[in-house]
Amino acid sequence: MGTTSQSLESEDRVRALLDAWCRATTAKDIDAIFDCYAPEIVAFDAILQLRFKGTEAYRKHWRECLDSCGAMHFEIHEAEVASAGDVAFVHYMARCGGTGPDGKEHLGWMRATIGCREIEGRWLVTHEHFSAPFDPMSGKSLFELQP
Amino acid sequence: MGTTSQSLESEDRVRALLDAWCRATTAKDIDAIFDCYAPEIVAFDAILQLRFKGTEAYRKHWRECLDSCGAMHFEIHEAEVASAGDVAFVHYMARCGGTGPDGKEHLGWMRATIGCREIEGRWLVTHEHFSAPFDPMSGKSLFELQP
Repeated sequence: MGTTSQSLESEDRVRALLDAWCRATTAKDIDAIFDCYAPEIVAFDAILQLRFKGTEAYRKHWRECLDSCGAMHFEIHEAEVASAGDVAFVHYMARCGGTGPDGKEHLGWMRATIGCREIEGRWLVTHEHFSAPFDPMSGKSLFELQP
Repeated sequence: MGTTSQSLESEDRVRALLDAWCRATTAKDIDAIFDCYAPEIVAFDAILQLRFKGTEAYRKHWRECLDSCGAMHFEIHEAEVASAGDVAFVHYMARCGGTGPDGKEHLGWMRATIGCREIEGRWLVTHEHFSAPFDPMSGKSLFELQP
C-alpha cells in the first residue's frame, strides 16, 4: 500500500519529476518540458484535440500553445501520488493561466492526472490528462469554479 | 516494464475491473458501479464540478447524472494499462452518450484516465478523470472530434 521505503523513494522521485515539469512549464522551456516525457506519451490535453500520440505530435501542440500565451503561470495543489515498482500515477489541481492580449493575468483551476513509468532508471511521464469540466446544458467550459 | 507474469495477471484483473465498471454503467446499476470504487476515490468528472472526494459525494453526482439521461451508451476503445505491484493506471477513449429528450441517441468521444489500487486483494478505482477538450477561443467543449 505504498508504505515501503522503496515506494516512498519512488514517490519522492515522481514528485521531483512533477516539480521539474512545473518549473519547465513556468519557464516556457520546451526542451526541459520534453525531458520529462517518454517518447511514446499519450496525452489528453485540455484544448483542441482528443489526444496526442508521441512526442513529435505533442511537441508541435505545445509549441503552438507556448507561442500563443504570454507569461505562463502554473501551480500544483493537492498532488497525490500512488507508486509501486516502476509504475506511478498522480492527480492534482492546477491553478494556471497566462497573460492575455490585454496584459492582464487570467487564472483558473483545472484538473490534471499523470501516469509515469521508471524507464532505464529514470521516471518519465507516459500519459497526461488535463481538463476543465463543462456545463452539460450550455456546452461551455467552467473556468470560474473553486476547489 | 510490466512484462512479468505477476504484472500480466494484474493487467488482466485491472481490465476485468474496467469491464465490470463499463457493464454497470451501461446497465445504469449504481450499486455495481460503486462496487468498483474505493471509498476514498478522488474523481474529476467531465461535468459541473472540479472534483468529487469520496463515494458519498460522487454517488450523489452519479445519481443525478443517471436520473437525467435516458439509455446509457458507453464503449471503451484503445485502453492501455500500466501496472506494477498494487498500483495501476489506465487510459482510454470513450464513445459515449445517451438518449436525449428527443428520443434520439447522441454519441461523442471523450477521454478517460483511471488510477487503481489493489486493496485487501481486490483491485478498485481510487481515481478517475473524464473530460472533453474545449476550444480556447470560444470556451465551448468539442464533442464532434474523431480520434
